[in-house]
Amino acid sequence: MNSDYDLKPLFEPRTVAVIGATDVPRKIGNAVISNLIFGGFKGEVFPVNPSMEKVHGKQTYPKITDVPKEVDLAVIVVPAKYVPQVFRDCAEKKVKACIIITAGFSEVDEQGKQMQEEIAKIAEENKIATVGPNCMGHINNSLSLNTLMATSFPPGGNISMVSQSGTVGLVLMGEMARMGGGISKFISSGNEAVLRLEDFLEYFAYDTDTKVVAAFVEGVRNAEKFLRVTKELTKRKPFIVIKAGRTSAGANAAHSHTASIAGATQIFNAVAKQNNIITCEGTEDLIDYTVAFSMGVLPQGRRVGIITPGGGWGVLAADACEEFGLEVPKLSQSIIDKISERAPPYWSHGNPIDLAATRNVDTLAWSGDVLFENNAVDSLIIQFFAGDLSVMVKNWRDRGNLSEEYLNMMEQIYRQIMEKIAIDSGKLVEKYKRPVFGITRDTEFTQMLVSRGVPAYADPRKVAKSLIKMLEYKEHRDKEK
Amino acid sequence: MNSDYDLKPLFEPRTVAVIGATDVPRKIGNAVISNLIFGGFKGEVFPVNPSMEKVHGKQTYPKITDVPKEVDLAVIVVPAKYVPQVFRDCAEKKVKACIIITAGFSEVDEQGKQMQEEIAKIAEENKIATVGPNCMGHINNSLSLNTLMATSFPPGGNISMVSQSGTVGLVLMGEMARMGGGISKFISSGNEAVLRLEDFLEYFAYDTDTKVVAAFVEGVRNAEKFLRVTKELTKRKPFIVIKAGRTSAGANAAHSHTASIAGATQIFNAVAKQNNIITCEGTEDLIDYTVAFSMGVLPQGRRVGIITPGGGWGVLAADACEEFGLEVPKLSQSIIDKISERAPPYWSHGNPIDLAATRNVDTLAWSGDVLFENNAVDSLIIQFFAGDLSVMVKNWRDRGNLSEEYLNMMEQIYRQIMEKIAIDSGKLVEKYKRPVFGITRDTEFTQMLVSRGVPAYADPRKVAKSLIKMLEYKEHRDKEK
Repeated sequence: MNSDYDLKPLFEPRTVAVIGATDVPRKIGNAVISNLIFGGFKGEVFPVNPSMEKVHGKQTYPKITDVPKEVDLAVIVVPAKYVPQVFRDCAEKKVKACIIITAGFSEVDEQGKQMQEEIAKIAEENKIATVGPNCMGHINNSLSLNTLMATSFPPGGNISMVSQSGTVGLVLMGEMARMGGGISKFISSGNEAVLRLEDFLEYFAYDTDTKVVAAFVEGVRNAEKFLRVTKELTKRKPFIVIKAGRTSAGANAAHSHTASIAGATQIFNAVAKQNNIITCEGTEDLIDYTVAFSMGVLPQGRRVGIITPGGGWGVLAADACEEFGLEVPKLSQSIIDKISERAPPYWSHGNPIDLAATRNVDTLAWSGDVLFENNAVDSLIIQFFAGDLSVMVKNWRDRGNLSEEYLNMMEQIYRQIMEKIAIDSGKLVEKYKRPVFGITRDTEFTQMLVSRGVPAYADPRKVAKSLIKMLEYKEHRDKEK
Repeated sequence: MNSDYDLKPLFEPRTVAVIGATDVPRKIGNAVISNLIFGGFKGEVFPVNPSMEKVHGKQTYPKITDVPKEVDLAVIVVPAKYVPQVFRDCAEKKVKACIIITAGFSEVDEQGKQMQEEIAKIAEENKIATVGPNCMGHINNSLSLNTLMATSFPPGGNISMVSQSGTVGLVLMGEMARMGGGISKFISSGNEAVLRLEDFLEYFAYDTDTKVVAAFVEGVRNAEKFLRVTKELTKRKPFIVIKAGRTSAGANAAHSHTASIAGATQIFNAVAKQNNIITCEGTEDLIDYTVAFSMGVLPQGRRVGIITPGGGWGVLAADACEEFGLEVPKLSQSIIDKISERAPPYWSHGNPIDLAATRNVDTLAWSGDVLFENNAVDSLIIQFFAGDLSVMVKNWRDRGNLSEEYLNMMEQIYRQIMEKIAIDSGKLVEKYKRPVFGITRDTEFTQMLVSRGVPAYADPRKVAKSLIKMLEYKEHRDKEK
């Protein structure tokens, strides 16, 4: 660790005070304290508010200095003009870390900029690990710690993320979790008056709960540190980043947003490539790549086996693999003979393995086992139900002519098959430690797959892009060893 | 119309017979007849099956020639070896159109190929408009006509699609409908022994219910006709196509799938460009583009206004617009002054219009009205809730510490705001006839938006790509006029 600030009290506080806590509905101070109290935080929580005696039934203190215990972390949500004084109180109380959620600083005007500089000075003098201002809070799932100003609490996992936009971060985090990539730690870095992107990345690099790091970046303030930190980080774990403000229109918008120095996109890209940082074109890439990496199994090579009950998806998957630089190898005669033992007579006799609408769905994962066992491929795409069953059933319900009994029966049959395929696919990952991907738009099928270590995407292009990013990361890392 | 076959009895039959109909669960013959009977088909249905007296309570005939009325359309689902004889019966009965769902023809072996040739000969001699074999059936929503071998029946709309893969077609159709693009007609073309992709495109070109045409294409059999038909088609309506089998791996897979001659991708791309065909990289593109076109409002120029309550999404949207060749114009002082009348003091004072977490959500669409009224932009991206509210609420429910009352209240507040924004956005489209797009991953918010003519996507890149495709289509079409 090389940070000027100790981030442990920020991410692992035993005590948290919320300055500006309230239980008035729709107030930010209510959202933050509710997340702490009702989110099940494993430490102690102290509401601070001079005009309330109790907040959500909890004794409330007029000032932070009135709190009868040591405070590891203070979260500030009072209006901007009160923040400097409240922050001085925090210094007096010897608070170790502070998150200033309040907006209205350097992003708005000269006066705000001066207030922010004052805060930075106090933080530095007192070594308070300070986040924000103008941020949305943070999460550490292992402690059920949640200081967000929004009612969002994704399930736990091994992904940690820093976001220079709170709202973008929230959406990414929610969607990653939905796609099977749970969250270890999240931080919205706001105006970065004190602690910056680079500091959080450094913390995540050495955090043992964090296996994958993601970031939404508008601008890097300390390029030298960013370089140093990311070099160490990517040796230890994959770091997936979306750099916004790439274009002149985007850079202008970024400047207005967090007063950050965007630009220098070429430099960023060069650094990314050199430091084995995985870059994304948009939010979809970030979600797909991060989820794929979080499953923890990297491909050992470019060869992909494609298994499908219906031809069209095989063609799309083969196109996607070749277009992104993967291989769809031909199968040896002995493997073809082996698969013919169980596949229907008119199967494709090649890769993609098109099982010609077989009714024996066990053949899908079984064929994958044959490929892995004979080391014919490095990863698998198993496609079974690419659509969304619940939407299909809903469409029929809306028409109202098909019996509930029939619809329920149909849904149940499909769900059973999906579960079987998910279980078998998960077993392949476990047995061979090679990646297996699913193609589906079905929410439940996605859950069945991802909970068994099988990422599931709507389109094979997403699989191919993720696989090639994983391979590039691995090859770069192995070269450096 | 220039087809050798009359496709009207195929898409607008008054009477439909299903040869091989059954009510035994999980049989294809059951799926097809169930779709017809329970789908509410507005014509008459005749089950044909020599070993059953009734199917789903309907009198059943041993042979098609026993049906006491004229048959416009026969759907054949009997095993392959019986198909030639059954098809000869259809000719004897003077059936006008026929869909052969049964597989096991040219896609499997030499014998199958010969049977298929025999069928083509009978069809030609008797001018039976014949689809398949090895296809999945079709839909005409205006008649509630559904002959699919799958239990799928998307809601009605103005999109018609032909797919050389039944399963890909089903998924695309379902997903387009979910994103707001309902279906007029769908056809799975199978092995194309008689009627081909080109014939269906020609029919859709002149079909008044069809405003947008989509296709999944593995190979074009009659290039000369394809050229001629698509030239006429794209003058009348947008034609969006995904060409699979672009790579050598994909082409091999396509050959095995429907025995089609894929390849010649360069030629296809050249033809597409020349004939104003909108091409896609993957299934996501096809869904996004088709839905955008189906809303019916084309942009008149490249200038995009971006409106958001939170900065990060504005940056991402600005990047996306510029990267795909759109413009994010600066705002005039008079427009800035006008918007300042209602926007919070710290709004971005530029485009993207970042309303700095305003609580007055009416300002979002109102700002859009100011932009359109002053002809400052040609289209709008209005971002409000980019995530998925139901997933957020579900995550909290799973934790179980926040009261149901609070969660319900929060969900209700958000849904109300979403509805207001959707209504206001829809009014902008209606008033100015310019495209407005939303950014969200929320299913209900998506429904609220698309039902008012506002396409809603998960990421601004999808909007920018769709907008540029719409603009290119329009510019090409205007030039030809």
